[in-house]
Amino acid sequence: MGIVEREREAPRPGPGDIVVRVRAASLNKRDLFILRGTYPLRTREGIVPLSDGAGEVVAVGDRVTRFRVGDRVAGSYFARWRSGPLSLDLFDQLGCTLDGMLAERVVLDEQWAVRVPDHLTWEEAATLPCAAVTAWNSVAGSQPVLAGQTVLTLGTGGVSLFALQLAKAQGARVIVTTSSAAKVERLKALGADAVVNYAEEPEWSRRVREATGGVGADRVVETMGPDTIEQSMRSAAFQAQVVLLISRGQEKPDLHISADAYRVTMATIRRVFVGSRDDFEAMNRAVAVSRLRPVIDCTYPFARAREALDRFARGTSFGKVVITFS
Amino acid sequence: MGIVEREREAPRPGPGDIVVRVRAASLNKRDLFILRGTYPLRTREGIVPLSDGAGEVVAVGDRVTRFRVGDRVAGSYFARWRSGPLSLDLFDQLGCTLDGMLAERVVLDEQWAVRVPDHLTWEEAATLPCAAVTAWNSVAGSQPVLAGQTVLTLGTGGVSLFALQLAKAQGARVIVTTSSAAKVERLKALGADAVVNYAEEPEWSRRVREATGGVGADRVVETMGPDTIEQSMRSAAFQAQVVLLISRGQEKPDLHISADAYRVTMATIRRVFVGSRDDFEAMNRAVAVSRLRPVIDCTYPFARAREALDRFARGTSFGKVVITFS
Amino acid sequence: MGIVEREREAPRPGPGDIVVRVRAASLNKRDLFILRGTYPLRTREGIVPLSDGAGEVVAVGDRVTRFRVGDRVAGSYFARWRSGPLSLDLFDQLGCTLDGMLAERVVLDEQWAVRVPDHLTWEEAATLPCAAVTAWNSVAGSQPVLAGQTVLTLGTGGVSLFALQLAKAQGARVIVTTSSAAKVERLKALGADAVVNYAEEPEWSRRVREATGGVGADRVVETMGPDTIEQSMRSAAFQAQVVLLISRGQEKPDLHISADAYRVTMATIRRVFVGSRDDFEAMNRAVAVSRLRPVIDCTYPFARAREALDRFARGTSFGKVVITFS
Amino acid sequence: MGIVEREREAPRPGPGDIVVRVRAASLNKRDLFILRGTYPLRTREGIVPLSDGAGEVVAVGDRVTRFRVGDRVAGSYFARWRSGPLSLDLFDQLGCTLDGMLAERVVLDEQWAVRVPDHLTWEEAATLPCAAVTAWNSVAGSQPVLAGQTVLTLGTGGVSLFALQLAKAQGARVIVTTSSAAKVERLKALGADAVVNYAEEPEWSRRVREATGGVGADRVVETMGPDTIEQSMRSAAFQAQVVLLISRGQEKPDLHISADAYRVTMATIRRVFVGSRDDFEAMNRAVAVSRLRPVIDCTYPFARAREALDRFARGTSFGKVVITFS
Repeated sequence: MGIVEREREAPRPGPGDIVVRVRAASLNKRDLFILRGTYPLRTREGIVPLSDGAGEVVAVGDRVTRFRVGDRVAGSYFARWRSGPLSLDLFDQLGCTLDGMLAERVVLDEQWAVRVPDHLTWEEAATLPCAAVTAWNSVAGSQPVLAGQTVLTLGTGGVSLFALQLAKAQGARVIVTTSSAAKVERLKALGADAVVNYAEEPEWSRRVREATGGVGADRVVETMGPDTIEQSMRSAAFQAQVVLLISRGQEKPDLHISADAYRVTMATIRRVFVGSRDDFEAMNRAVAVSRLRPVIDCTYPFARAREALDRFARGTSFGKVVITFS
Repeated sequence: MGIVEREREAPRPGPGDIVVRVRAASLNKRDLFILRGTYPLRTREGIVPLSDGAGEVVAVGDRVTRFRVGDRVAGSYFARWRSGPLSLDLFDQLGCTLDGMLAERVVLDEQWAVRVPDHLTWEEAATLPCAAVTAWNSVAGSQPVLAGQTVLTLGTGGVSLFALQLAKAQGARVIVTTSSAAKVERLKALGADAVVNYAEEPEWSRRVREATGGVGADRVVETMGPDTIEQSMRSAAFQAQVVLLISRGQEKPDLHISADAYRVTMATIRRVFVGSRDDFEAMNRAVAVSRLRPVIDCTYPFARAREALDRFARGTSFGKVVITFS
Repeated sequence: MGIVEREREAPRPGPGDIVVRVRAASLNKRDLFILRGTYPLRTREGIVPLSDGAGEVVAVGDRVTRFRVGDRVAGSYFARWRSGPLSLDLFDQLGCTLDGMLAERVVLDEQWAVRVPDHLTWEEAATLPCAAVTAWNSVAGSQPVLAGQTVLTLGTGGVSLFALQLAKAQGARVIVTTSSAAKVERLKALGADAVVNYAEEPEWSRRVREATGGVGADRVVETMGPDTIEQSMRSAAFQAQVVLLISRGQEKPDLHISADAYRVTMATIRRVFVGSRDDFEAMNRAVAVSRLRPVIDCTYPFARAREALDRFARGTSFGKVVITFS
Repeated sequence: MGIVEREREAPRPGPGDIVVRVRAASLNKRDLFILRGTYPLRTREGIVPLSDGAGEVVAVGDRVTRFRVGDRVAGSYFARWRSGPLSLDLFDQLGCTLDGMLAERVVLDEQWAVRVPDHLTWEEAATLPCAAVTAWNSVAGSQPVLAGQTVLTLGTGGVSLFALQLAKAQGARVIVTTSSAAKVERLKALGADAVVNYAEEPEWSRRVREATGGVGADRVVETMGPDTIEQSMRSAAFQAQVVLLISRGQEKPDLHISADAYRVTMATIRRVFVGSRDDFEAMNRAVAVSRLRPVIDCTYPFARAREALDRFARGTSFGKVVITFS
């Protein structure tokens, strides 16, 4: 696993392209899996890594209509997925089968990019494409969480914290699990209405049910998968929705759910895989109106990108790990 | 038009009934129409008026399971409409074909009542059943407004102010129209992101479009009807939704929409008629989590109920007109 | 396990009740579990068994408005569930916590009953409440199957055959699995577009994918559960929906799904538990317009009800097992 | 108004393009409006006319993956609208702002084309892109019509007949209006369950209500607009959906709806503008599975295209007017 530094010629935009001077990029688990060669989807050799980055438009092709020089943009994870449901012919991903964002300058088809909210720093804007859109789709896609409903999120990874913040922006009540007493206050500062310490109570679904008057959560954003699905299902309200997000590189990824877990709550299990460009833009409106600020665990300059990867790989981050370009 | 004061015997609950000591009641336009005899739906003679009221459970029948003595409750507008879509056999309304809430003690089938949020005063709780549930259904029913979307509300009547507050609770941006410069600050204090003075600009949809970067509103809560539908349609975003709420007693109620108005935005027109008990309970969760406080224009003791009606009939209220029982 | 024959007095309707002279009743797995005492939900001792039955209204209470003497009706499985989503306070079931249909005369609250389609015999009408409504909810509830989509059903049990027939009524293409070459022609006569023999190919999802040009089924009506969920998931189209219906009395009911099964198709798993009275009535309209005829495996007179139970318990029926009253 | 015949050089495909040898094309009202210069949307001068046509792929660019030489295809009306909701940046239309199908050979971006069902003739396939997709979106989009529901269609134009056929393919009951007794049998042969003669009864909504036991239609496909909206609204079931499709070139296009019409049924008015490529492909699956055959009023060779236009402009067609290329 590793990143190879390369010089490329200054990119020139085709007629429908934009050139983006990248200011910051951020890491997601799938980037680790791609770098390690354990990502189960097709990848392309020698690709510029990372789906997530944000920067400034510095040149536009002749036929570009969506952007002007100076616009602040990010690329959309599934570059060709504009709207509607995901389909298999739309699977091209930045930093996987298409060049990604870990470069000083990148060329993007203008259809692959979105404007980022004005109030965000470059570092913050760089965290949105994968984790925040995934979280948005989990709480606002399909059947949107309504104000007053209860959302359960697991831990302090990127998707979970965005799900917490976006659910709060929608007026939901949010319960978060953590194993660290030290993180409780930080989670509450982000809006968590209740925090459940799963280290203290392996059957932590009991705590979730207690915290909901026995009813359970209306939406569970299940970011862990096989290890936690049993308790997640038991935490759900009757016929609620568990959004199952599993990083496609886990070691023991089979799902096992006990009869008690799926019988009692009869929850729907919905799968989400990031989101479309329309989802990204809808989320940006929510981020802008709610003045949401993404949570950044730490920031490294590009020269120390490997340290960023190491830090992220330890899996103990509270929020996103960001790499900046000067 | 008028209210006749009557003595009734102390009510005794049937096995599935609760007795509620009403503490406060509130007025809606349909109450005026019913009292005037201009309400176009079937009404029953000599009915206890008003759909909206809140009070304390003081007795319960043998088989009651939903409530205990001491619970704080309100009746549900369409008493028999529990969930799902409205249908014609569910049209019984409190204060219309069923005895309503303008009485010191009322008997309700326990299925007709809901708990009200703890943080509300009696006066505030009494404003919810008709106006707030209508507003909730308008912004959270069918396709819920998403955080970051723009909602347009008209004026300062009960439904409009609840729509403003509930849309804010969902994370929306809200634009409100008014003809009164004096009301602008109060609307902003309630969360309005922009206020459009329609007295200054008869073509006020232009202001709405300006305030949305030319895009228009994603949801219009059209509480006026025939007089404003043309501008409401022109205020909508492309293929957005205009919720049309028309008080069934208006004088010139035909709808006229110009080709330009419906062509350009291609908006859907959806009709809403209050909501089910499930809607009411879902809204109460939103009210509780967001700590929403209903806006009360003024409060009169029961002895001065006619003044309350007069005040409300003038149509210049900012929020709800409430009648209290000592 | 067993049925105890008892004499009861001629039932008299309360003001909102109807008296039904039952002409036929039908069996479902949950009836076996209830009779055996292995049903995991609360049951009531000494209950009249069976949720499913149809008959003629022979008397009505004073306040009955939905029915007249002579109407042909069936009871609704969850008697109190009128519309909208199921909730825990609506769990009363005929033949479980409420008296069911295995009696010559039953009294039903008029709200618990629905008219049955005119073209059906009593035997056919008696098969609808549990299996047909479950199948309807599986293919027409939530996101309805569209004409032209592909539905997969498993085997020849009651729910599966109704799902086949109702999916055909909606214009879908239907693939059915069976282990019996002898059943292939009967399935095709019912409209099956393709039949997959799972005895010949344990990895039968491959046959389903072949039969769909590699795409998979848009809806899987998973009536078996733990034993087949792996192949069902592998049979689904990308982001399709697997409706998981598990009889709550199975011996090894835990769910195990391999990573390959849930990763590749990213299917949603939705749970269905029969349906509401509104669902039943909507289905009846579909049954009437499509002239659907329920598939009856065999019919026994009431005097031979135990034989009917034995036959049904063997699990080899092709369609429903019916008990008739003369 | 008129069509100018021109010679063009044999087209050569770009890397992502296909060359289609057009075999047949069909007419829609919008084509008349464009040719007459009364279409209110932006058009481009000198465009090849007609959105609707079908033909054979005779050459493909280097990077084409969706098609091979020999494939039978049609272009998608809104060429760039792939999926999800329509938006204003996707408004390019074949035969309006992009070259259309009235040519012996056309070049299409492969993303703009769809395969047509195998069982259709070229003439039949040529009728699908505008009218059939509009009809599909009207009955299967948003809330799909369920089997057993009642659909009302107006007259014998292209969209109406497709709506009739597609609604039947979904298992609906269909009521059709006509002013011509002579057409009744043809409509019944296409599946119409009831035909209402509006010439005999100006208040024809009464006949629709009679034909539905007083309930009204669950979906109205309102293809006429201002002239019929009043009766259409009165024909709708309570809280049903009226899909309003108005050709954007009508002379008196303002909408007027009486209070009685919108109050009693409280119907939603939904606007539809053809559909996306995904809609087109979903419809093609329905057409294929149901073996639907489009209704062709008459066919003219290209040399007599003006006669075809004249015939179509008279507005008395029963189905589509087609132009063929030898």
